[in-house]
Amino acid sequence: MYPKKELAQLVISACHQFNIDTVVISPGSRNAPLTIGFSNHPEIETLSVVDERCAAFFALGIAQQKQKPVAVLCTSGSALLNYYPAIAEAFYSDIPLVVISADRPKHLIDIGDGQTIRQENVFEKHILFSANLIENPKFKTRNSQLIGEALQLATSQKGPVHINVPFDEPLYETVDKLKEFHFPNISMSSLDNANIDYQKLANIWNNAEKKMLVIGVNYPDAELHSLMDLYSEDDSVLIFTETTSNLYHDKAINAIDQLIFSLDDDEFTALQPDILITFGGMIVSKRIKRFLRDYQPKHHWNIDEKKATNTFFCLSEFIQTKPVDFFSKFNKIINKKESDYQPKWLKIRDYRRIKHAEYLSQIKHSDFKVFEQALQSIPNHCQLQISNSAIIRYAQLFTLKNTLNVFCNRGTSGIDGSTSTAIGAAFANEKQTVFITGDLSFFYDSNALWNTNIPNNFRIILINNSGGGIFKIIPGPSTTDALKYFETPHCLTAEQFSKMYGFEYQKAYSTNTVSEALKDFYTASNQPKILEIFTPSLENDIVLKDYFKYIK
Amino acid sequence: MYPKKELAQLVISACHQFNIDTVVISPGSRNAPLTIGFSNHPEIETLSVVDERCAAFFALGIAQQKQKPVAVLCTSGSALLNYYPAIAEAFYSDIPLVVISADRPKHLIDIGDGQTIRQENVFEKHILFSANLIENPKFKTRNSQLIGEALQLATSQKGPVHINVPFDEPLYETVDKLKEFHFPNISMSSLDNANIDYQKLANIWNNAEKKMLVIGVNYPDAELHSLMDLYSEDDSVLIFTETTSNLYHDKAINAIDQLIFSLDDDEFTALQPDILITFGGMIVSKRIKRFLRDYQPKHHWNIDEKKATNTFFCLSEFIQTKPVDFFSKFNKIINKKESDYQPKWLKIRDYRRIKHAEYLSQIKHSDFKVFEQALQSIPNHCQLQISNSAIIRYAQLFTLKNTLNVFCNRGTSGIDGSTSTAIGAAFANEKQTVFITGDLSFFYDSNALWNTNIPNNFRIILINNSGGGIFKIIPGPSTTDALKYFETPHCLTAEQFSKMYGFEYQKAYSTNTVSEALKDFYTASNQPKILEIFTPSLENDIVLKDYFKYIK
Repeated sequence: MYPKKELAQLVISACHQFNIDTVVISPGSRNAPLTIGFSNHPEIETLSVVDERCAAFFALGIAQQKQKPVAVLCTSGSALLNYYPAIAEAFYSDIPLVVISADRPKHLIDIGDGQTIRQENVFEKHILFSANLIENPKFKTRNSQLIGEALQLATSQKGPVHINVPFDEPLYETVDKLKEFHFPNISMSSLDNANIDYQKLANIWNNAEKKMLVIGVNYPDAELHSLMDLYSEDDSVLIFTETTSNLYHDKAINAIDQLIFSLDDDEFTALQPDILITFGGMIVSKRIKRFLRDYQPKHHWNIDEKKATNTFFCLSEFIQTKPVDFFSKFNKIINKKESDYQPKWLKIRDYRRIKHAEYLSQIKHSDFKVFEQALQSIPNHCQLQISNSAIIRYAQLFTLKNTLNVFCNRGTSGIDGSTSTAIGAAFANEKQTVFITGDLSFFYDSNALWNTNIPNNFRIILINNSGGGIFKIIPGPSTTDALKYFETPHCLTAEQFSKMYGFEYQKAYSTNTVSEALKDFYTASNQPKILEIFTPSLENDIVLKDYFKYIK
Repeated sequence: MYPKKELAQLVISACHQFNIDTVVISPGSRNAPLTIGFSNHPEIETLSVVDERCAAFFALGIAQQKQKPVAVLCTSGSALLNYYPAIAEAFYSDIPLVVISADRPKHLIDIGDGQTIRQENVFEKHILFSANLIENPKFKTRNSQLIGEALQLATSQKGPVHINVPFDEPLYETVDKLKEFHFPNISMSSLDNANIDYQKLANIWNNAEKKMLVIGVNYPDAELHSLMDLYSEDDSVLIFTETTSNLYHDKAINAIDQLIFSLDDDEFTALQPDILITFGGMIVSKRIKRFLRDYQPKHHWNIDEKKATNTFFCLSEFIQTKPVDFFSKFNKIINKKESDYQPKWLKIRDYRRIKHAEYLSQIKHSDFKVFEQALQSIPNHCQLQISNSAIIRYAQLFTLKNTLNVFCNRGTSGIDGSTSTAIGAAFANEKQTVFITGDLSFFYDSNALWNTNIPNNFRIILINNSGGGIFKIIPGPSTTDALKYFETPHCLTAEQFSKMYGFEYQKAYSTNTVSEALKDFYTASNQPKILEIFTPSLENDIVLKDYFKYIK
C-alpha cells in the first residue's frame, strides 16, 4: 500500500534513490501519506519515536554511526520546531540529517487553521538547504529538482536539510504501487583541490622547529590513523588528540587538560608551536583554546572538506580537502627534524600520568573516582557515548582504551539530546554501546528512553551528583548567591524511569559498591541496563581542584 | 549583589520598568550576569526550570493568567532553540512571552567555540521583534532603544519578543547596586479606530435576516460577557461559543460539534448566515470551519486589535479594534429583528442535549464517559486547562459549568507543552487549577513536572487510553496498515512519575472506581495529585461514533 498522492510518492522515491534506508517517524495526521509510504517500502526501515526532540537526536545518532543520511518525519505545526536542537547539532557536527515535515497547503497558513505555523525556511540559520515543495502537478519538475538538491547536499556536504511537503486533504487514500520517477543522475560533487600548493606548505613545514597537530572530533578511520604515524615519529611534532578524535597514538597527548592545565607563562612559551595543523570537529578543551589564542602559532592550517574554522583567530591557510587526502600527499614530501620538542613534552605527559594514577589511588568516592572505575570497566571494542557537559570534561583527563570508539555531541555542546543520540548510535551499531552521562543531561532528555528500538546490550552509567556539577567546577557560579539557578539541585533518581521504560536498574554509592556493580554490568541481558551512581555533590569539586594541584 | 556588566544591568532595569515581575530561568553559565541580577532584584520573582522547552511553556501559562509579559532566560547555544515550540504558541495565541538569551560575542560565532549557534533573529518567522544587543558602551543608546521597542511591543501587541544578549567573559563579577537607567517614556500605542464606519455596518446588520457570532479563545471578561446579552436576546442571531471562549450564555450554542456534526445539506443551508462576526482566538471545531467554508456568509467581519484572520476565505471587513470597544458602540445603533432563526436552532440544540444526556447514561466506561464524570466533578470557580488533541475535542461536546475559566494551547495546537502551560497557569492563579490531559501529550511533556513551583491544589486528570486515541477517531489512519505510526501504542503509566515528582497518585479503570476516586480528589492536600484513568482503547472510538448517530 502506497499513498495515492504523487508528491508523497516523489519524496519516498527520492529518499530511496539517494540511499536513505532509515526513517524515524513521529505520529501525526498531516504526514499520513509519507508515513504510509515509508512504512510500506520494502527497503526502508521505519522507527517510531513520539517526542520529536528525541526522535531527531535518535536519528542523529543513527546517522553518526552509519555515516549516511537518516530521515526524520513529522506532522505540521510546532512538532517541527522540536527538531531544531538536533538540527543545530547536525549543522555544527556535519551529520546528514534529512528533516521531512508535512505541512498544510499555503492558502491555509496564517488564516486561523490549527497546527499551522510558518514552516518554509524555518531553520534557515542552521540548514544546508530548504526544499519548499508545492503540491500541484504543474510543479513536478521543480519539486524533483528541489528534493534532489536537498538530498545531494545532505550526502555530499554532510549536514541537515529540510524538505517541507504540503498536503491538501484527503490524506489517507492509497494505491497498490509506487510510480517510477527518474531523478537526474547527480554526480556527488568532487571537491576541486587542485589549488592546494603542497610544495609551498612542505617548505614551510620542513623549515619549522616546533609543529603541532590538534585533532578534534573524528569518526574512526584506519587510514587516517596510519597516516599519523609519521608525525608521532617526528621529534619536532606534538600531536594533541581530543577524546572524541578516535585517534590513538602512544606518542600523542590525549589528555590535553591534564598536560596544560597548570602550565605557567614560561612553559606556555616553550609549548607554543611555529606551525599548527588542525582538523576534525570541535575541540572540547577550553584550556587549549585559550593557550593557542594567547600564544598564537606563526602558521595555522585548518584542513576540512567543507568549511574553515578559525578557532584561534590566526588562521593562515584553509586547506579545503579531506584530511586523508591531504596527508596522503603531504607525508610524501616532508622531512623529519631532530628536536627535543616532542621528547620534552612527552616526559611531562608521562610524569602527569604517574601523578594521575597516584592521585586516583588515594581519593575517595567522587565523580572523578567513579570516572576511573567506569572507564576501566568498559570492555574492549565498545562504542562509548559521552554526554555534555561536566562528563566530557572529566573524560578528557583520562587515557582511554585505544579500542574504544568515542562520540559526544560537540556541534553545539547541548545537554538536550545526548541520551537520544546514544540510543540512536547503539541502534545503528553492532558494537555494545556504553553511555556515560550526568544527571541533568539524563533527566532533561528522559523521553529518549521512550523508544522501542533500544538494544538489550545498551548500558547507561548515570553519575548522579544531584545537580549540574559543572557549575561547582567552573570558576564563577559559587561566588554568587544564585548558585541554585546554576546547578539546579534536585533529588531525582532514574529508578522510576528504569521501571517505566523496561531497563534493569542498579545503584551504587561508594567505591566498593561501584566496583561490585560493574562486575557483571556488561554481560548479556534481556533488558538494557542503567547503573546509577550517587556521588557526594559537596566534595566532587574539591577532589577535582586538588587533582590539578597534585599533578603539577 | 548585581552584575557588574552594564549591559546586564540595562536589560534588568528595562524589564523592571516595563513591569515584568516574573522570570523563569534555566541553568547555564553565559547567562550568569542576568541570573545573578534577576534573582537579586527585590521586585522580580525568579523561578528555576531546567528543561527550556518546559520552562517556556510554564512561563506562557503564567503570562496567560497574568495577562502581562513574563520573561524566560537561558544560556547560549541549542538551549535557546528549545523555546521555539512555546514561542510559536505565544505568537499565534497572542501571549506576551519575553525570551532573553545570553549569547557569545559576535567574534566567537562560527569559529568553533562551544555552545555557539546563530542566535540573532533565529525565531524570525514567529516573533514580533528581535533585539540583537551588542556589549559595548558605544552602543548603549542603540541597546536601550532595541530593548525598549521589544518590551513595548510584547506589551502592546501581546506576543513573543526575543532579546539576544551577548556577554564576553568574565561573567561572574558583581557590584552592590544597580545603576539608574532612563528609558524614554514610551506611550502604549493606542490604536486608531477612527476609520471604522459603525453606521455602515449597522445598516447592513439591521437589514440582515440571519446573523451569526462565532467566538474563539478569550480570556474571561465580564464586560464583554454582558455586551453579548443583546445578541442572545435577538431571535435573528445565533451565538456559537468555543469551549475556550469563556463566554457562557443560556442562548449560545456552546457544544458546536454536538449541534452541527450530523447536519445534512438542507440543514446547513438553513443554518448559513447572512452576516458572520468572529472574534477571539483560534476555533477548535473542524466541522464549523468546513461548514462556513462551504456555506459562506455574504459578510464576514473579523474583529481584532492586531491582525485579521480570514479562516473561512470570505472575510469582507477587518475591524481593527478591541471587541469590547466595538460592541460598546455597535450595540447602541443596531436593532433586534423578529425571526425563527435562533428559536429553531436552540430547539435542535436542546433536543441534542437531551439525547446527549440519555446516551451518556447508558454507555459503559470509555473516554467519553470519563469526560462526563470528570467535568461534573470539577468544583465551581476552578480554572480548567485542557490538553490537545482528542481531549479538547471531547470537551467541545459538553456544556461546561459557567463558573469555570477554560484554557487550551490552540495557537499552534501542539501537544508539546500543555502540561507545562497548565502548571504555569496554576502557579500564577489563585484558583484551583484542574488539568485534563491525554496520555501522549502527558508523557511527551513529562519534564513539566520537574518544577518546584507546582501548587498543592493542582490536579491532573490523565485519561490514559494507551496511545494517541485521536487517530482512531479521525477518519483515515485506521484504514491504513500503518496505524502504529499514528497512535503510537504504549503501556506507560504516570505512577512512577508521580513518585519521582512528589504527586499523590490514584488510578481508576471503571465508572465506579472513577466516581470513587473523584469524590475527595479536589480537597486540600499536601501534594498535587494525579488521577490516572485507564480506558479501553479498542472501544473508545466506537462509543464516540455511535454518539453522533444517537443524537441525530
